[in-house]
Amino acid sequence: MKITVKKSPIVIPGFRFSGVACGLKPSGKKDLSLLVSDVPATAVAAFTTNQVKAAPVFIGAERLRAGHLQAIVVNSGNANASTAQPGLKLARDTCALVGRELAIDAQLVLPSSTGVIGVLPDWRKMRTGIPAAAAALSPRGFWSATAGIMTTDAFPKVATRQVKLNGRTLSIAGMAKGAGMINPNMATMLCYVCTDAAVSRAALQQVLDQTLPDSFNAISVDGDTSTNDTLVLLANGQAGNREITPRGRGYTAFRDAVREVLCRLARMCVKDGEGATKVVDIYVNGAKNTADAEKVARSIAYSPLVKTAFFGGDPNWGRIACAVGYAGARLDQDRLAISVGDIPIGRNGMSTGSRNEHRAARIMQQDEFSIDIHLHMGRGRAHVVTSDLSTGYVHFNSAYTT
Amino acid sequence: MKITVKKSPIVIPGFRFSGVACGLKPSGKKDLSLLVSDVPATAVAAFTTNQVKAAPVFIGAERLRAGHLQAIVVNSGNANASTAQPGLKLARDTCALVGRELAIDAQLVLPSSTGVIGVLPDWRKMRTGIPAAAAALSPRGFWSATAGIMTTDAFPKVATRQVKLNGRTLSIAGMAKGAGMINPNMATMLCYVCTDAAVSRAALQQVLDQTLPDSFNAISVDGDTSTNDTLVLLANGQAGNREITPRGRGYTAFRDAVREVLCRLARMCVKDGEGATKVVDIYVNGAKNTADAEKVARSIAYSPLVKTAFFGGDPNWGRIACAVGYAGARLDQDRLAISVGDIPIGRNGMSTGSRNEHRAARIMQQDEFSIDIHLHMGRGRAHVVTSDLSTGYVHFNSAYTT
Repeated sequence: MKITVKKSPIVIPGFRFSGVACGLKPSGKKDLSLLVSDVPATAVAAFTTNQVKAAPVFIGAERLRAGHLQAIVVNSGNANASTAQPGLKLARDTCALVGRELAIDAQLVLPSSTGVIGVLPDWRKMRTGIPAAAAALSPRGFWSATAGIMTTDAFPKVATRQVKLNGRTLSIAGMAKGAGMINPNMATMLCYVCTDAAVSRAALQQVLDQTLPDSFNAISVDGDTSTNDTLVLLANGQAGNREITPRGRGYTAFRDAVREVLCRLARMCVKDGEGATKVVDIYVNGAKNTADAEKVARSIAYSPLVKTAFFGGDPNWGRIACAVGYAGARLDQDRLAISVGDIPIGRNGMSTGSRNEHRAARIMQQDEFSIDIHLHMGRGRAHVVTSDLSTGYVHFNSAYTT
Repeated sequence: MKITVKKSPIVIPGFRFSGVACGLKPSGKKDLSLLVSDVPATAVAAFTTNQVKAAPVFIGAERLRAGHLQAIVVNSGNANASTAQPGLKLARDTCALVGRELAIDAQLVLPSSTGVIGVLPDWRKMRTGIPAAAAALSPRGFWSATAGIMTTDAFPKVATRQVKLNGRTLSIAGMAKGAGMINPNMATMLCYVCTDAAVSRAALQQVLDQTLPDSFNAISVDGDTSTNDTLVLLANGQAGNREITPRGRGYTAFRDAVREVLCRLARMCVKDGEGATKVVDIYVNGAKNTADAEKVARSIAYSPLVKTAFFGGDPNWGRIACAVGYAGARLDQDRLAISVGDIPIGRNGMSTGSRNEHRAARIMQQDEFSIDIHLHMGRGRAHVVTSDLSTGYVHFNSAYTT
């Protein structure tokens, strides 16, 4: 998709950022980023559930236990995944060098990597890149850091929000890289959200737990994550507000602002799906329960046959009904209703005819549209955002080389 | 794939076949087939596990209960699926008309349909097609009947075997249509196997139970079947052999012959996958148990990223390791070994280097090759046959219209 990004300056009090090129990407583009807080920040994170985990994910999970981080170091171009012990050593060495350069405890540094799997990153390049990134740190470096975490992304993914709380302005800024094959087989998703809000660890954890299902987990499933997926929230308290607690004043406004940031970033990841030409919202209603609704939504969102029909703009009621049928949810096929936008294409388990089909086909010409499923079995609901499957996807992914 | 089929005559004593065009296919190609036994034949069948089932599947399952069938009527061009009560009536009317034309009990007729979903087949066309098909029945009509069950198949799928038993020759002939998007989202698979062997119902059921896992269930999963999938075995006993029983003489030879027929037909369905350019055998060894091995094999076989790498001939060890990781099987990533053909590309959780990668890439240029996974966790094994994901697949399926 063609996306134009206006790069307004982004400043989060008490944070500095940088992105430099150290040669990990053959293209010579930026491939090493630092995100640094002036003081140790409250930190929570979510990592991939893939059983094959990259070295930085193991190290990152260790570092998170203490609940605070002061720096995140991200390299792109190489995922440091399936690299066994040498990979773990390299991730630890990376944190140690960042700690020395910034004069902070290496235990407060979280590493992230994204790119090619199965090959150890070149330490000589990282060893020169890290001091360069440290020297380039700036309160205005957010966009540079965003560039440094990108791999096959067609555009940088950034979202910001501000929340007023007792006269204080809390700033929230997030960056993400989506890599694109979001669905069903997500390439590495990295997302870092920085805020100057003062937030207790418990509150920040609760924010993550309450916002992840609607945002990044609504575009992927637990089982289908890459080896490196990482999402971190950092709150450094420099706004000087009274600390936000799980049941305290301002919690809801803050959480909702974080949710908006995450949802915008997640949607950008779908929009930037490799070769994606369309963003499709799948809404399921009337399932026996939420779990059933999610099964149906994901079954549709992951069906290559349905996704190629999206690409072709074909309101193929049969393919959607078939994907509903093998989802494993309780259903009565004679109650099934399917709409494209506001046009019903199936009702009571049957097609609504060719006139509706033609109207639905027109809606499917748009860049974004929705598919609404009603099972008429109960009150379970789910929403998943997906993209189409285009010839571009196959071109891209068959050419991408190890 | 380019396949040349030599149509040697196929005769199974006591069976007649026909295939005619009645206008259900806009192309004017054959779209209505009959398979008829001179006497009621012992019959067993497997049907789709999709919760959205086509009308003929409901009727067929009813007819199977008595254990005998004398005729199968198949129409292509329309699946009679998601057609509610009118679809059920049409399937029953179809059997009734076949029964009248052949002067047999309509309860001994099994209906099958394949094609577009969500639209009722045109009964006027079927009503003229059925008498025409009955009139065209011939002992030499096997290939005609095969043509009548095809939809998007690029070539007819036929396999035969003979077994000698106590001086008698037992003939087995099977036809299938695969439609192509075999994996992960199978379009309708129909398969009919006829034999003149005398086989008890219990023995025939056991043959089906013992051969399905290695054949058609090794190219698809239960959860991913279409609305219409149907596999029927008919044994009419005209060879005059002493009836084959589950523990009796000749059972093993007969079962193995049926397995060979089914495996050949299943493999042809993969080869004919829409846009497929390669057939890939995924072998998993050393899993904790069989279930884990199957999870891993299917996870690899269904990953669009892995399948596009097959298309590109890219020995992408990282993508395969990633698919292994999210399969949900117990594993230790440091023990994982992956080979392409006989070339190890990953060992102890790491790449074996670029020299092996280049050798593996050469193997992947072939039409058929294998991927071998060893988890080193136990003795569980699995085998799945899959195809690549090509630009042709997307072209084809985005253009196919409702």
